[in-house]
Amino acid sequence: MALIRSVFQDELDGVSQSLVDLSNMVAESIAKATKSILTSDLKLAEDVIASDDAIDDFQHDLDARIIDIIARQQPVASDLRALVTALRMSADLERMGDMSHHVAKITRLRHPNSAIPSELTHIFQDMGTAAEKIARKTGSVIGSRDTDVALEVERDDDEMDSLHRELIGSLIAPQWAHGVETAIDLTLLGRYYERYADHAVSVSRRVYFLVTGKFA
Amino acid sequence: MALIRSVFQDELDGVSQSLVDLSNMVAESIAKATKSILTSDLKLAEDVIASDDAIDDFQHDLDARIIDIIARQQPVASDLRALVTALRMSADLERMGDMSHHVAKITRLRHPNSAIPSELTHIFQDMGTAAEKIARKTGSVIGSRDTDVALEVERDDDEMDSLHRELIGSLIAPQWAHGVETAIDLTLLGRYYERYADHAVSVSRRVYFLVTGKFA
Repeated sequence: MALIRSVFQDELDGVSQSLVDLSNMVAESIAKATKSILTSDLKLAEDVIASDDAIDDFQHDLDARIIDIIARQQPVASDLRALVTALRMSADLERMGDMSHHVAKITRLRHPNSAIPSELTHIFQDMGTAAEKIARKTGSVIGSRDTDVALEVERDDDEMDSLHRELIGSLIAPQWAHGVETAIDLTLLGRYYERYADHAVSVSRRVYFLVTGKFA
Repeated sequence: MALIRSVFQDELDGVSQSLVDLSNMVAESIAKATKSILTSDLKLAEDVIASDDAIDDFQHDLDARIIDIIARQQPVASDLRALVTALRMSADLERMGDMSHHVAKITRLRHPNSAIPSELTHIFQDMGTAAEKIARKTGSVIGSRDTDVALEVERDDDEMDSLHRELIGSLIAPQWAHGVETAIDLTLLGRYYERYADHAVSVSRRVYFLVTGKFA
């Protein structure tokens, strides 16, 4: 019995490690997507678009593994909750990868032009940095179950929201001179970064709830 | 044993019925949200915003019930897959409710003005009709497991995508005369309807896969 329990514990640890790996994959994808859009780098954009398939496959395999563990180990109570939560976290992380993909597709759509007027590059630079940071931190929360870091993720998301408001403010300012098509691109880009961070917050909150039994 | 199996079957049917109910709740919420934005009806918008809490609570209770069934019945193979899939479907449906909520928040933000210029109301009228239809049909797919209707949902989503392209075309046309702020609102609204339909497609595909073992 002790041996079986230990195999199960190894399996749970393996799931947790895969979620950390997935967090790092989507952290890398948003960093590359941001660089692609800031430098109009088509090759990098194509890289991000291709790597989204790898992220989807990774998530698909992880989910199959989690369901297989539930079927074989028939966990109850907190172990079952942890595995169901892992399925939800993998869905959030996969969706973060989709957001990187969407950013890269705008790079490709506008190439060789830039989707982002030069005076707004600093906002997207900061959004990209915030997004990568929040994803790496989310991975660390999953690995360590450190609830203090989970709360930090909430604050990082506030930073993203503030950048998002700054962006919208620039678009609707009277001196906006780049037309509607660019405004549409930037509205969508802003939404992708905001959603990316929201999903990371969702993952962190799930960990927080698993550890404390309370909502953050 | 036959009795236990039958209780379990009743529980699975109950989950399925709750997913149908949730589909109808989000069908109603997008219908109301659309009416609120087309008529700048603040009271209706507030109704939609309040009903999103009811949708979230309903989903929360349903998910707790599903996890409880897994813990007690310890299903394997196809029954376990159906229950895990039910969790994913409830997440998609809940997210559709969020999209209605987002639409209603734009009604409220712009009230007593209208977010939508009069010459574009027909597009949102059609998007709202398509969204409600796709949600009702999704409910019917969950209830009946009819794979033909699941494939119809894919075609309804093509209709939504076509409306979305028409919308973006209007925004970037040279004769656009409503400024950037309105274009931002309409870009976001278009995205909400498109995502709403995407989540419905996702639910239908999950049913299709459960029934046929193949991807639609």
